[in-house]
Amino acid sequence: MRSKVAVVDTVARYLVKQKGKRIRPILVLLSASVSGGINESTYRAASLVEILHTATLVHDDVVDNADTRRGILSVNAIWKNKVAVLMGDYFLARGLLLSLENDDFKFLKTISNTVRRMSEGELLQIQKTRKLDINEETYLRIIGDKTASLIATCAELGAQSATADESAHSSLRAFGENLGIAFQIRDDVLDFVGKSSLLGKPVGGDLKEKKITLPLIHALRSSTSAEGQRIIGLIKNGAKAKDVSAVVKFVSDHGGIEYSEARAEAYAADAKAALGAFPESPGKGSLINLIDFVVTRTS
Amino acid sequence: MRSKVAVVDTVARYLVKQKGKRIRPILVLLSASVSGGINESTYRAASLVEILHTATLVHDDVVDNADTRRGILSVNAIWKNKVAVLMGDYFLARGLLLSLENDDFKFLKTISNTVRRMSEGELLQIQKTRKLDINEETYLRIIGDKTASLIATCAELGAQSATADESAHSSLRAFGENLGIAFQIRDDVLDFVGKSSLLGKPVGGDLKEKKITLPLIHALRSSTSAEGQRIIGLIKNGAKAKDVSAVVKFVSDHGGIEYSEARAEAYAADAKAALGAFPESPGKGSLINLIDFVVTRTS
Repeated sequence: MRSKVAVVDTVARYLVKQKGKRIRPILVLLSASVSGGINESTYRAASLVEILHTATLVHDDVVDNADTRRGILSVNAIWKNKVAVLMGDYFLARGLLLSLENDDFKFLKTISNTVRRMSEGELLQIQKTRKLDINEETYLRIIGDKTASLIATCAELGAQSATADESAHSSLRAFGENLGIAFQIRDDVLDFVGKSSLLGKPVGGDLKEKKITLPLIHALRSSTSAEGQRIIGLIKNGAKAKDVSAVVKFVSDHGGIEYSEARAEAYAADAKAALGAFPESPGKGSLINLIDFVVTRTS
Repeated sequence: MRSKVAVVDTVARYLVKQKGKRIRPILVLLSASVSGGINESTYRAASLVEILHTATLVHDDVVDNADTRRGILSVNAIWKNKVAVLMGDYFLARGLLLSLENDDFKFLKTISNTVRRMSEGELLQIQKTRKLDINEETYLRIIGDKTASLIATCAELGAQSATADESAHSSLRAFGENLGIAFQIRDDVLDFVGKSSLLGKPVGGDLKEKKITLPLIHALRSSTSAEGQRIIGLIKNGAKAKDVSAVVKFVSDHGGIEYSEARAEAYAADAKAALGAFPESPGKGSLINLIDFVVTRTS
């Protein structure tokens, strides 16, 4: 990631110092380990997804006007939107170069389709957010494109690096898609019930951004129209701290948390089922632990 | 460019309707024609560079807070930064997919290195702009990375699509690099002496953005230190319309326009020299016309 341009080095070093969960590269390694074994190209695939993920986080923080990321200031908060947009592009290009220099064309085909899905998912979310009009089906499409597509890609890349067996590729892809959806539903639940000190970001951030997620979608359809209108009104007018508390209570009172947790568990079960064909191994045990972690985590 | 997400289609259609100069795809086609002949892959390379160029323009307008582009409102002005950042990413991904689906791996290697150079060039410019500290050497490095790298890539891609002869690739690349520098110097001259009605953007935009370009660099080194300090002071404090006129007069009085025009002509001559090895043909005639156009254009 070194560059002759000083500001690139400064920002890159700032980002590398931040310890995220590194779930995506871990997923690449574990998926390779269950489907044939880790090799040199597995490490490149793992690097590629982490670089790509970092690029999208940097752009996401511009898109969401977010000031913090992983508990510390975001790139746009310190260096402004300009630098954040360009650093995201720089990371995308560096990730591509890593693959091209090693003739990892299969990885590239998998991943550039994912980049397209991710940007489409974000754009669909923005389009729907403007109208505050979103149902469970649209929500699932958005999180499928925005989040699950990259998680699925991690698992698929791991398999592609380890074996030519296409049924292993598609099993691991299905595992990742379900895991990704469970992951994002859990994330959206935590935005209502998490602790900001653990999350590294404020609770209720989605509401302030007018993002309607599954807990609220369920609560809205389980309440009277008048109650729902009042809640939508609070969000539409830009929810303040007091309003956020009111919405959180509404969601909780109408079973939005329980429902969402149950849906996350169901996707987690599907993710486990997709691993059925692989023999027992320490790697497979870790993937199952990862599924359990994703739906029970508090940060 | 069609997408299942409505806003993607809307923005894509808006962008396609705008008629830019289309210099980059034309350059791909002409470069192929002088080095072996246009074929199917030449058209894909031409599409790739225009898609990529569009993506970078959309991101540039976010970076520069620009409200207009090609005489009409920019994407960020209409749909906000969020959509602009994501649409840029979407275009990048679609461009890559176009190449990957056709196994144009050579094109991809050429172009992703260019994306890296372009984002590095922009970042270097931002870094230097903050200090208003820039000399001719740094200026040339920035415009080489920001602008000439893509023009050079267009010419190289055209050659790569037409012939396996590597000396043709490097001759056309050298032609493009020189043409690109001439192009950008002319662009920077027009920011001082152009007509906003022809340019489709306001004159003096670079000064307002605190971008120091060649005409001003030359004027500063040709003037007394006291005069220079006064001019830098106007720019540092955010040049208003009256200040822009003062800076334009200063640049003109100290030979900044003539010097820059002469430098652009010199690069144009180098660009022509790089075409020396190719036999006379209508395509070569058009490339030479294009060089002449680039350094004399008024918009």
